[in-house]
Amino acid sequence: MPVKDLKGALVDSMKDLLHAEKQLTKALPKMAKKATNAELSKAFETHLEETKQQVGRLEEAFEALGRKPDTKVCVAMKGLIEEGEEIIAEAEDNDTCDAMMIAAAQKVEHYEISSYGTVISWAEQLGETEVARLFKQTIEEEKKADQILTKIAESTINATAQT
Amino acid sequence: MPVKDLKGALVDSMKDLLHAEKQLTKALPKMAKKATNAELSKAFETHLEETKQQVGRLEEAFEALGRKPDTKVCVAMKGLIEEGEEIIAEAEDNDTCDAMMIAAAQKVEHYEISSYGTVISWAEQLGETEVARLFKQTIEEEKKADQILTKIAESTINATAQT
Repeated sequence: MPVKDLKGALVDSMKDLLHAEKQLTKALPKMAKKATNAELSKAFETHLEETKQQVGRLEEAFEALGRKPDTKVCVAMKGLIEEGEEIIAEAEDNDTCDAMMIAAAQKVEHYEISSYGTVISWAEQLGETEVARLFKQTIEEEKKADQILTKIAESTINATAQT
Repeated sequence: MPVKDLKGALVDSMKDLLHAEKQLTKALPKMAKKATNAELSKAFETHLEETKQQVGRLEEAFEALGRKPDTKVCVAMKGLIEEGEEIIAEAEDNDTCDAMMIAAAQKVEHYEISSYGTVISWAEQLGETEVARLFKQTIEEEKKADQILTKIAESTINATAQT
């Protein structure tokens, strides 16, 4: 559906993000279960709880704009999540599987960092301060989740996956 | 195809990145042509030149690993690029189209920042210093391209797209 102005673009992106976060609440428990490294499993579980709160913030943001929460399928995000699920299904080595799940999860985090960065910028331009405030909380969680995954990979998993 | 170790994961990700960069060299000229804002059009053209160099670096990295350059379709990246092309086809307002093309391009940049971050980390773990060196050049270009797009959006395009 064509978008006519920045407000339309904001709502469109929020639909995309709500769909993405809801898909993630289904994928993260599988990743937590599959992870061999205990620290990684816990990181996925922690991010699952954050993701549930992020769904709530998106719903609040729709309300702040006077709209009903709605979703829209984003092929890219669907592909990223499917990629994660393929890794789980196909990996032959547990440590390599952990390393590849981290890589897949970080692509998802970066997709979200980029998307939330855009909607914050657009909401601020439109004077939608409550929407911007909500998404600033979320983007900080996404950046932190990305950093935690880098730390887990570089402190243990990459080395064990090497051999 | 299942991946057995970190070296396999590295090669797999490089195939994915080579496909992504090659797709981008086709998408960026269309985006540069479609952009109404002259600064944005120039930014896309500049990034096209960088992307061509990044293709070359990926080919060099395959050689450094003693392999022939190869590609692998990544559904996520294909989706991101298609999203950009849909925006071009469907946008009803030039300024909003520019704002949405920036958002789409920044998702691509973040996909690449995440992917190159991973392959740098894995190459360093594997002692593949030449591969890591090549990709560090690329990741800096991707981060800079992302920052330039934010600057263009926030200095002019978001405001003109608002009305």
